[in-house]
Amino acid sequence: MDFDLTEGVAVLERTPGVLRGMLDGLPSPWIERDEGPETWSPFVIVGHLIHGERTDWIPRARIILEQGADRRFTPYDRFAQFQESAGKSLPALLDEFASVRSHNLAVLNDWQLSNAQLDLTGEHPEFGRVTLRQLLATWVAHDLGHIAQIARVMAKQYRDAIGPWRAYLPVVDR
Amino acid sequence: MDFDLTEGVAVLERTPGVLRGMLDGLPSPWIERDEGPETWSPFVIVGHLIHGERTDWIPRARIILEQGADRRFTPYDRFAQFQESAGKSLPALLDEFASVRSHNLAVLNDWQLSNAQLDLTGEHPEFGRVTLRQLLATWVAHDLGHIAQIARVMAKQYRDAIGPWRAYLPVVDR
Repeated sequence: MDFDLTEGVAVLERTPGVLRGMLDGLPSPWIERDEGPETWSPFVIVGHLIHGERTDWIPRARIILEQGADRRFTPYDRFAQFQESAGKSLPALLDEFASVRSHNLAVLNDWQLSNAQLDLTGEHPEFGRVTLRQLLATWVAHDLGHIAQIARVMAKQYRDAIGPWRAYLPVVDR
Repeated sequence: MDFDLTEGVAVLERTPGVLRGMLDGLPSPWIERDEGPETWSPFVIVGHLIHGERTDWIPRARIILEQGADRRFTPYDRFAQFQESAGKSLPALLDEFASVRSHNLAVLNDWQLSNAQLDLTGEHPEFGRVTLRQLLATWVAHDLGHIAQIARVMAKQYRDAIGPWRAYLPVVDR
């Protein structure tokens, strides 16, 4: 699929509700367990998504749209959520994510981006030149990747509990 | 994690809302596209989950609980949804899934299963002897595996649209 703004936003605006539906009110082992050392629990993933709303997608889109002399993005901190989520509850994080996402989608909508603007470029610290269209498509795919990750992390907690069915459920060994 | 009935049901009861949150009202390409030949779209996956509610989890649990002479499960038809979903809309399938799941969880709750009952066994057509506990844990992990699959199938539609970010989003190549 080519990136389409309306189709992409349709996914972005659903993610806060999806996370709430998956996680809000669940017994805490589902929220807190991860896949082993150096991996993330659903709680950590929600914090990571919040950090992205604050520092990644819209701030980078702004750098592209402004077309200043220096269009290099600030490198993304993949570990910020370990400090930023400390002491917060999951319901508080889910509310915070819904709020920052909603704000960012309002900003995006106010821009009323044209195709020409979607073709403007910025400078990724590793990849070099990228388009606004690619950045926004990545925002969408990044949400979906983390939804898949949360479901996988949870499924994996039952790797032993499912006994021989493990052979039929590759998600628990992914 | 060991299987725990309360914790498992907490996931099972959320799945209809999660699927609705992910899919209801989305532009149709997100619903209809798959990962290539012999793979499933989100639409097909919802139909598969409905078929499981009707023929797999609770019917197999009943076979185990009855402890009759023949405790062999009916083999599962992984392709039934291609006929059963034909001509239906996604909203209709989402409603149907919510309804059969809710019915099945009411049945499960009425049973008030004891630990001794969770240890009873049935005969899987391939694996041989399995416990009710393993069957119910698999019901949970199977839901989560298909939620992860839906998110992955959707993410994959943007494999080209994300440009160089593909290197950072393994979900689009999984």
